[in-house]
Amino acid sequence: MSTSASSFDPNVRFDDLVALTRPRSVMIVGASSTPGTLGHTTVVNVLQHSDFDGEVYLVNPKGGELFGKALHPSVADLPVQGIDVALLLVPAEAAVDTLRACARQGVRYVIVFTGGFAELGDAGRTVEADMLAVARSAGMRLYGPNCAGMTMLAPRLGLTFSTEFRNDGRTGKLSRIGLVTQGGGLGRSLMQGNERGVCFSRWFSTGNELDLDSADFINWLAHDPGTDLICTVLEGIGSGTRFIAAAAAARQAGKPLIALKIGRSEFGKKAAQSHTASLAGEDAVNDAVFSQYGVIRVEDLDEMLDVAGLISRVGVRSLRRICVYSSSGGAGVLSADKVGEAGLAMAHLADETVAEMARHAPAYAALTNPVDLTTKALVDPELARRCLAPLFADPGVDAVLYPITSNYSASTEGLVRNMLDVAKGGGKAFVPVWMSSRRGPAHDLLIQEGFAPVYSLRNAMHALRRVSAYAALPAEDTPEAPPEGLPRAAPAVALPCNEAQAKALLAQFGVRAPAEAQAGTAQEAAAAARQIGFPVALKLVAGGVLHKSDIGGVQLRLRNEDEVREAFERILANATRHGVPAHAIRGVLVSEMVVDGVEMLVGVHRDAVFGPVLSVGAGGVWVEVDADVVRCHLPASRARIEEALDKTRISRRLAGHRGLAPRDRAALVDAVRRIAALFSALGDGVQSLEVNPLVVLDAGLGVVALDAVIE
Amino acid sequence: MSTSASSFDPNVRFDDLVALTRPRSVMIVGASSTPGTLGHTTVVNVLQHSDFDGEVYLVNPKGGELFGKALHPSVADLPVQGIDVALLLVPAEAAVDTLRACARQGVRYVIVFTGGFAELGDAGRTVEADMLAVARSAGMRLYGPNCAGMTMLAPRLGLTFSTEFRNDGRTGKLSRIGLVTQGGGLGRSLMQGNERGVCFSRWFSTGNELDLDSADFINWLAHDPGTDLICTVLEGIGSGTRFIAAAAAARQAGKPLIALKIGRSEFGKKAAQSHTASLAGEDAVNDAVFSQYGVIRVEDLDEMLDVAGLISRVGVRSLRRICVYSSSGGAGVLSADKVGEAGLAMAHLADETVAEMARHAPAYAALTNPVDLTTKALVDPELARRCLAPLFADPGVDAVLYPITSNYSASTEGLVRNMLDVAKGGGKAFVPVWMSSRRGPAHDLLIQEGFAPVYSLRNAMHALRRVSAYAALPAEDTPEAPPEGLPRAAPAVALPCNEAQAKALLAQFGVRAPAEAQAGTAQEAAAAARQIGFPVALKLVAGGVLHKSDIGGVQLRLRNEDEVREAFERILANATRHGVPAHAIRGVLVSEMVVDGVEMLVGVHRDAVFGPVLSVGAGGVWVEVDADVVRCHLPASRARIEEALDKTRISRRLAGHRGLAPRDRAALVDAVRRIAALFSALGDGVQSLEVNPLVVLDAGLGVVALDAVIE
Repeated sequence: MSTSASSFDPNVRFDDLVALTRPRSVMIVGASSTPGTLGHTTVVNVLQHSDFDGEVYLVNPKGGELFGKALHPSVADLPVQGIDVALLLVPAEAAVDTLRACARQGVRYVIVFTGGFAELGDAGRTVEADMLAVARSAGMRLYGPNCAGMTMLAPRLGLTFSTEFRNDGRTGKLSRIGLVTQGGGLGRSLMQGNERGVCFSRWFSTGNELDLDSADFINWLAHDPGTDLICTVLEGIGSGTRFIAAAAAARQAGKPLIALKIGRSEFGKKAAQSHTASLAGEDAVNDAVFSQYGVIRVEDLDEMLDVAGLISRVGVRSLRRICVYSSSGGAGVLSADKVGEAGLAMAHLADETVAEMARHAPAYAALTNPVDLTTKALVDPELARRCLAPLFADPGVDAVLYPITSNYSASTEGLVRNMLDVAKGGGKAFVPVWMSSRRGPAHDLLIQEGFAPVYSLRNAMHALRRVSAYAALPAEDTPEAPPEGLPRAAPAVALPCNEAQAKALLAQFGVRAPAEAQAGTAQEAAAAARQIGFPVALKLVAGGVLHKSDIGGVQLRLRNEDEVREAFERILANATRHGVPAHAIRGVLVSEMVVDGVEMLVGVHRDAVFGPVLSVGAGGVWVEVDADVVRCHLPASRARIEEALDKTRISRRLAGHRGLAPRDRAALVDAVRRIAALFSALGDGVQSLEVNPLVVLDAGLGVVALDAVIE
Repeated sequence: MSTSASSFDPNVRFDDLVALTRPRSVMIVGASSTPGTLGHTTVVNVLQHSDFDGEVYLVNPKGGELFGKALHPSVADLPVQGIDVALLLVPAEAAVDTLRACARQGVRYVIVFTGGFAELGDAGRTVEADMLAVARSAGMRLYGPNCAGMTMLAPRLGLTFSTEFRNDGRTGKLSRIGLVTQGGGLGRSLMQGNERGVCFSRWFSTGNELDLDSADFINWLAHDPGTDLICTVLEGIGSGTRFIAAAAAARQAGKPLIALKIGRSEFGKKAAQSHTASLAGEDAVNDAVFSQYGVIRVEDLDEMLDVAGLISRVGVRSLRRICVYSSSGGAGVLSADKVGEAGLAMAHLADETVAEMARHAPAYAALTNPVDLTTKALVDPELARRCLAPLFADPGVDAVLYPITSNYSASTEGLVRNMLDVAKGGGKAFVPVWMSSRRGPAHDLLIQEGFAPVYSLRNAMHALRRVSAYAALPAEDTPEAPPEGLPRAAPAVALPCNEAQAKALLAQFGVRAPAEAQAGTAQEAAAAARQIGFPVALKLVAGGVLHKSDIGGVQLRLRNEDEVREAFERILANATRHGVPAHAIRGVLVSEMVVDGVEMLVGVHRDAVFGPVLSVGAGGVWVEVDADVVRCHLPASRARIEEALDKTRISRRLAGHRGLAPRDRAALVDAVRRIAALFSALGDGVQSLEVNPLVVLDAGLGVVALDAVIE
């Protein structure tokens, strides 16, 4: 076994998993002669339901024989050394000792099925630490604990205790889809997707991920010649950099990675902490990272099956121009609604297509999209072919959507069969939607012929949209170097920085603040204002006060010296009234008043899982109310920053509009890159840097940082 | 047959449908002896698959006998008069003559199955007009044409040509749900919901709705003692007032009305026009009307089945506090995620509940929400009862959600059976979610026991949220009289009104405009500005120019006479440059400059289906970009207007926030009511009235209309 560095991030190493996935020898520790026990099922899975021709060794303290094989009393009694994979079905309290024995035996990989560790609390975490130490010192890798093992279906190898392994992949045609889940429950549910024609060919259930993690298996699938597509259910992401590197490997291999991230909401997070040992992470950050690295995020198990089924069948391509074929007028209209709502387009049929259909179809057929050639035209296979072939050949159509509203048994089956005959040769994505609760022969025919249906129009649209969005992803790019001429490191600062210190740092990185001066008396404030020019703003300077507006510490649009003096007194009175101690008050900042710009927020914070994350969006005092901030993982290219900006509503206010001049968007993007560079230069001690508002002036006039906090 | 006035709107009359729904005699015109024809199936449905003991008369020009009954050669040959219901299966071209014959015979209701009328174009519409004239003059009511007829299941009466009638309601326990659809396809799909345990007991497919419409049937179901819940699929709404009156009848009867409106998008609309004869209406208006009159709007057929199934089982009540019970940790977390995303809450279990469960459950059970008492606790029925009963008795839990991730055949069945035993007596909404693609005995058991499952967590949450929202609807209220002292009628105006005329009308209705004066020269403008006080705004006054900003016709924040004179010249130059003819230019309006308010849009327009509709939301030049406008049907109470306002994002800017004073929201709501009253007073000739921006000043300072258009 060996590891290799990720080509995306040389600091990340992935295990090659060769001896785990194609073992020559397997040992089952806890093999049992008692039917119904996990120790027995596992033996049966390996010996009777796997196409495995390597050596199998069984260990049980009672000794004896099972299926003609010796039950060795202990790992130490084994006649060989260097077994590829050991499966551990021993009680939690025996885990460390058994691992020691495995290490001495030279075992390469140990799959620990046993639960009762970190997922139960601190005591379990301590045991896990011991287990990891044993493995590390022996160069042995651990899979699990608390996991459902490994299911390989081509060729068959079930290193799992589940009796369901005998059904895996038996009912449907295998798709070339790999699956990585932590827990077993959701994974098993997805594996049962074979009933609807979505058949995973490999499934890794990684459990607590004490050593090997989901990223190792995603990376392995990215390089596996038997896999075209990867699905994963993530309960927590232990290492953000490893996950990103694995996602990049999938991307480089041209294999879509579909992820269901669970533990999104506060409630989910709480539940996740009691269930797994890893952090759930802030969900908006997950969204940003997934989108940035081309991970297709889905919302539920059924959506994962919809998207995986569609991609495994039609590949990755744009499926935006939809032709709806329906023999129910209502279903046609409803389909068109859903196409529109999903941001897809009803395909415009070519004149020749319509003309050719008209030559064969009955007079009362509907020849515009949605198309309905009438039941009559579909009952006769030859007529169906003539009528439908032009539709499937129209270059303006990406996908033919076929809503099947009801099951009329044999008659529906006949129509579907004729439809499939054309669809199979049509070279067009064909998307049947089974809308009835009543399944039947037509439904089963679709699956048997490899056209796994989707079960509602909404779901069909979600899947088409996800695939189209993936097909439209910009080429992967590498983060650009920061703007030239910036310092590599910033001076050390005491945290949190006050506004003046933060602005000074920003200025060093080329982001200007308004002209300003600090004043200790009303008279000094008036004099400073005269020098800066009216109108001005006054802001309290006091240690420990971060949100000055909240306590009346900001006064705006002061037009003359009298107003400045009055505002000075008011700010000090407000501060005192809100309990700011006199010794903390250091005066006020008199600033150039910047009017008529768009107020943005630009911030960077350090996410516990993924590291530096940029936030950009609507700023000012309404930040929380507007909730119009989009995130982006750093470092990021200029294009990714522009993309994040485009997702905000406020970005539309940067363009010229109805007599208003466009704003200096280029300067904004430049400032974002400078702020990101400053955060990086400040080093790991800084948790967040927020500029709010950053005012974007008219094009050519740049941006001004009105306030900033570094913590 | 007779009609009665709606108690909600005395101008609306609904048919009582007594002789249609409980006929004593039925005539089938076009009865056929040839098996497989619609004329034959219909006869079989009535004679062999209905519990109908009234008289049945068959008409076929060929004469003879069928099932021992005479085939009368024509309607005129019938030995009786005054038949309750005639079913027409005659060619379209024979429809008018057959209707005449029916009228002479004294038939009360005619169901016209035949298609080929308005849905095919103008010629069909002409025939329909003739059909309607025949019926009206005879006092005979028409159902259809182009419809799938009427399906009653308790007692059984199938006035339909579909062979599927024999399956309707046979496979599941009947629910007390009525269904009204226009077309047959989507309706049939919903009827097959009986496979998943949602069994409609009445289905009206109304076709082209030439005479009787969906509103008649919704109203009938609202009064039907056999119906608790009404579902409808609306392809178009012919009369908005009739639909609203029918919805009100359902509301008054305490029967939820669930609607799927199709033809939402532009594409859908186009398709709808070719399919039905009614207008699809602007969809945002549908949303507003549905929400205002308590109609539960769903997005797809499966969602209709989810919501109808849930309500028919648990009734209407708040289902916000969810307890998740799961034996898969991952499913528990995912459920908690979905609960949070849907805006529902994870229930907090009472200490006594946890303590009581702890007395019986195994040590490693999870006793906080999500709860997992382990498989062990559920295998033994008695232990399951002891463990689960406290959960189902906890007063802090509204619903117990039970995600079933996988089907393990008999073992899943056993767990589900033990769960159901407790759930049945628990008095708590119990929501099983079948998450596997593999059905099996446990799935069928749920249906058989009356616990129809939902098929994904997302779908379960949608349904729980819809039901909870319905349960939380405010009591129905009646529109209030407009503010006192307003004129009943406004002076007749030439349309479109220019800004000055519109503002004069607004002033008469108590909505003030800024102080302003018209000026024909730069010198006059400067003098007017001096009198009004600085700063001022200047706006072009020119015939035919409605959007002044777009051509540089607005200049703001002018601080002295020099700036005013300069701005005057600039506006005139801009107008000329944009091709405004000199004779159209009537000068500029000099206005008080209103700064520092929140810019709103308040408008009323006349919707083709529903009549006057209010729009309120974010105003100013960014209206289209912000897209933050909510609609409300008029007349509306103050509470409904407040509700609409609350749905806008901009409304949050009206509250005080971080040192900013609250705005005059009360004055805004008052102004909205005055603007609605003005629209009403202007009469039916006016199509729209829009005030934008209406600036809301600080609390106590009122609102100011800066611009207005009446068209």
